[in-house]
Amino acid sequence: MRRRGSFITLEGGEGAGKSTQMARLKTALVKAGHSCTATREPGGSHGAEEIRDLIVTGTANRWDSITEALLIAAARRDHVERLIRPALKRGEWVLSDRFVDSTIAYQGYGRGLPITLLTRLRRLSCERLMPDLTIILDLPVEDGLARAALRKGNGEMRFESETIDFHRRLRDGFHKIAAEDPERCVVIDATQEVESVSALIRAVVRARLPDSGL
Amino acid sequence: MRRRGSFITLEGGEGAGKSTQMARLKTALVKAGHSCTATREPGGSHGAEEIRDLIVTGTANRWDSITEALLIAAARRDHVERLIRPALKRGEWVLSDRFVDSTIAYQGYGRGLPITLLTRLRRLSCERLMPDLTIILDLPVEDGLARAALRKGNGEMRFESETIDFHRRLRDGFHKIAAEDPERCVVIDATQEVESVSALIRAVVRARLPDSGL
Repeated sequence: MRRRGSFITLEGGEGAGKSTQMARLKTALVKAGHSCTATREPGGSHGAEEIRDLIVTGTANRWDSITEALLIAAARRDHVERLIRPALKRGEWVLSDRFVDSTIAYQGYGRGLPITLLTRLRRLSCERLMPDLTIILDLPVEDGLARAALRKGNGEMRFESETIDFHRRLRDGFHKIAAEDPERCVVIDATQEVESVSALIRAVVRARLPDSGL
Repeated sequence: MRRRGSFITLEGGEGAGKSTQMARLKTALVKAGHSCTATREPGGSHGAEEIRDLIVTGTANRWDSITEALLIAAARRDHVERLIRPALKRGEWVLSDRFVDSTIAYQGYGRGLPITLLTRLRRLSCERLMPDLTIILDLPVEDGLARAALRKGNGEMRFESETIDFHRRLRDGFHKIAAEDPERCVVIDATQEVESVSALIRAVVRARLPDSGL
């Protein structure tokens, strides 16, 4: 029986270069002969994108933080059940721009919801599915916000009005997540040139997932 | 300090007469001098109604049962935080057409989700808020479905394609809920004439909530 595909997530704060790096990694994996599905959160599947619209549009305080966490969990459940699991079963490689760690970082470390509550919601959404590899693109907060400001109007701005302190808690949060699960997570310094970061990501994927053929 | 208002929910299967009876109870409470907010689930608040649209439209299998439960929990959180609690704090009486017991009956006893899972989601949505009184309108399954068929096109039809067996589990579920929480729940035989049912509901409200002045 054919082994199921692998599941890689890219994580990090605003302006870390996740979408650029995801496109490059996808190209490399396709060149190596894999079928590859690129997706994102919140959203990803048809239903989850509709829930995403509720989450990211409207005023900043449209939802209280627990309502937001429940909506994210619902969107993730749909994403996992309708897109990620079926693609992995078909033997595809799945790359996601953000996944469960963004919720722990933004809603947990950033907004202050208890991590245990978010972990319980994650189990409802994903059951036992976790990424095989998570790449965290790390950048000093000021650099990330400056980069994000450059592409203003392109994408959601929901977290850019947050304080610098919020973004610091976010970055520290991603570091804690990586420290607690080093088998799954790798932190990469995203201050380097785009091509250096890509090469580093390919090297990590090669080392951690030899099936990748990178 | 003025006592907070009271919170009454109406529950029951399809065609039990919840909306008719809610309108009549509201009229009686207003006549007795209360400010009264009538609401419903899923939905109720502005945000929850938007989530409701996602829940009730589209095909029957649009969401898997856990995704649906998470969406219901998100809508309920918004409904509780933005509409029910503020109205109770202002001293109003709040009447809701369906609330937490419908989730236990439909998603739990009807669709087979574990009751413990739904109870955990309820605590996330409502924290410690529970209705002061829950009136369960009880009707043989065949009678309820026949009544619901008469008003076809008016309201959602999501559960009417379910089997008779589903609706039987639902009715039994409401009976179990009432048996487990007799301090809060009263089951009323809804096969009687509309006016007899209304009179019975007013008598129950008078007995259980003397502040009602009914």
